[in-house]
Parts: sequence; C-alpha cells; structure tokens
Amino acid sequence: MVFAVKENKLSVLLVKRDFEPEKGKWSLMGGFVGEGEGLDEAAQRVLYTLTGLSQVYMRQVGAFGALDRDPGERVISVAYFALLNFDEINHEAVAQHKAKWMRLDSLPELGFDHPEMIGKAREEMRRRISSEPLVFNLLPQRFTLTQVQNLVEAVNGETLDKRNFRKRLCENSCVVATDEIDKTLSRRGARLYYYQRPAPGESTNFKI
Amino acid sequence: MVFAVKENKLSVLLVKRDFEPEKGKWSLMGGFVGEGEGLDEAAQRVLYTLTGLSQVYMRQVGAFGALDRDPGERVISVAYFALLNFDEINHEAVAQHKAKWMRLDSLPELGFDHPEMIGKAREEMRRRISSEPLVFNLLPQRFTLTQVQNLVEAVNGETLDKRNFRKRLCENSCVVATDEIDKTLSRRGARLYYYQRPAPGESTNFKI
Repeated sequence: MVFAVKENKLSVLLVKRDFEPEKGKWSLMGGFVGEGEGLDEAAQRVLYTLTGLSQVYMRQVGAFGALDRDPGERVISVAYFALLNFDEINHEAVAQHKAKWMRLDSLPELGFDHPEMIGKAREEMRRRISSEPLVFNLLPQRFTLTQVQNLVEAVNGETLDKRNFRKRLCENSCVVATDEIDKTLSRRGARLYYYQRPAPGESTNFKI
Repeated sequence: MVFAVKENKLSVLLVKRDFEPEKGKWSLMGGFVGEGEGLDEAAQRVLYTLTGLSQVYMRQVGAFGALDRDPGERVISVAYFALLNFDEINHEAVAQHKAKWMRLDSLPELGFDHPEMIGKAREEMRRRISSEPLVFNLLPQRFTLTQVQNLVEAVNGETLDKRNFRKRLCENSCVVATDEIDKTLSRRGARLYYYQRPAPGESTNFKI
C-alpha cells in the first residue's frame, strides 16, 4: 500500500482491475514473492517499480489469510505500507502502471479484503506518527510548524488543537528552531524548523 | 507463541528440538496452515491443541519471511501471540507436548529467528497492555490493585511507581472498587476491585 499526503489529504495508490477476479473494482498494488527474495525485499521491489523510490519509510501491516478472501484461489497476502513524500515520487512510473491517487475520505469500491488492509494500515500510521519521527520524511529540510500539523492531521483524519499540538511537538528535542522566517504565506511569516536526526546508536524519544 | 505470567515472571512455552534443523536448540511451538482453514483459525487450532484453551486473547505479530530464516527449506511463518491466565491452562496438554515454561529474562538458546519473534511479540504486548484492558484476562474476577501492577510489571519487564500507577489505573471507569477487603496477604488488607466490561457496542477507553 502506497500512501502520500496530496493536497493536504491522505491518499493511496489504486488500480482499476480490468481482469477477473473482481474485474471493474479498484485494488491495491501488489506482487508475488519470488523464490529468491525475502518478504521485505519483495515489498521494496514492488514499491520501487511503482514509484521509483527505495529506502523509504515502509512497515509490514501483517498477513491476511482468511479462506475466502480471494474468489479465485487460496492466496495469503502479506501487506506493507509506505508513507511517501508526494514531491519525491516518480509520477511517470505511477502513470505507466495506470495507478491513481485516491483520497481516503472518498474511496471507490474496492475488491477483496482491501478495505480491511487499508483500515489496518491507517491504524498503524496513526499510532506510529505520534510515537516515531516519521512525519519528517514527508517534509522538506526546513519546515513550519503548520506544515507538520497539516500532515499529522491528514494522516489522523482529524483536526488538532494548534496550541497543544505545538507545545507537544516542541517538547521533542529533535525539533529545532532556526533563525529563518518563511514569509511566503503571511506577512508576519512563520518560523522555520529542522529535524535533528539522532546520532548513530542514539535512540529517538519522539512523542506528539 | 504462548505467554503467561508464572510466579510473577513473564514466561513463554518452548520445546527442545530433538530433530533437524536446529536439533538441540529450543523453539516456539507452531504448525502448518491447512488448505481448509484461515490463518487465524490455524493459530487457534494450534493454541487449543497445546493448552486446551480457546477464545482467549490472541493477536497476530506479523509475517517472517527472510530467505535464510530456516536452514532446511524456504518457509514463511506468520506469528501469533496469546497471553494466557496461567491458572486456566490445561497443564496436562502442555506436558504431553513436552513443552516447558521458560522465563523471558533467562531464555535458553533459541533456533531460527525465534528470538526476533519473541522480541516483536513482547513489544506488542507492552504496547497493548497499556492501551487495551487485556490485563483483566489474566486476573480473577475480583482482584487487588497490587495484583494488576504485578502483572503489568511482569509483561513490561520493569517496576512502576506504585502511586502513579494506581492513579492512572483508577482513572479508568471500567476499574470498579468493591466494599470487600482481601486480608490474605496483610492484616490491614487490600481493597478488591472488578473489571466492568463495556456494554455491547460501547467502546473501551483504557489507558494506564
């Protein structure tokens, strides 16, 4: 499952199936695990083919193995999700696969157990975005606090109280203020911040 | 993976392998998924065979599929963990399978990627025990706050501040005090509590 925040809305890549089973419905992108690759490598390969991206934030959601989940034959699928920076994606590769970005708040009819997969992935994303510094993968090097809040709100699907959010965010020592002010969006401007990666071996305590 | 708190220590069921591969090492219990059963049903079946228990707290940890994880052949395993009330287990069934309870803080040498599986399961348990009311599955109907704390400490593998823990625990409306005092452990005694299950359709907001 490939997710990105597009125009402030969490979106997922889908393809319309033009073959059976579930012809005419939309589905997530996937692939088969090769004999010579591990599960994680297979997921990386599919993602790279589709988006031109590697070494991005990707996590396993779990295995889906109900007996009747594929009307064709018995298939056990292991689902992964990647959460990408929309601006870094190779949009030509996406177009070549006839994949489309669909907003999570207005999904078309999906085949198989893919609604359940998306639901579980979203649950994982929500949980992880508040306990891991993954939001910074989706931002430019220098960012405003509003940008962070917009992304977290998009992933969580709910608005957050601005004052509380900023307070919690800035309690993380990895979020560092610069002297620069971004004036592209307002006359008063907004301070720019950067994310201080932990030194190798150092752990990140991140919580928002 | 079958976990229980035994003598205040989180423990897991293991068997010593008397056949190749990994002969002589210890391993988790597992089984193969039948053609006519889903993944969840297979996990339930294995657990029932081993412990005589069904309808207990069990969750999927995820799929393990590195190429070299089994020296014999290519195997992809989907790991589940169950966290059981030690007193409810059919210990005869356990003995028939020559399985032994081993404390997590002094595990023997394990085969395959089973240390990683146990690590992930423990991470999940830690996370879930503080956000789901699963600890009450491990307790008798009426319990003292000390009993709850002992169990949470065993799962987390660390001691907790008594005052803070009790404060947080009692902020959950599902933890209800009774008028009864348990005097088996001290002259002053300890108040007994019970867990108020949410009504059907009602959600549990639990946090400790």
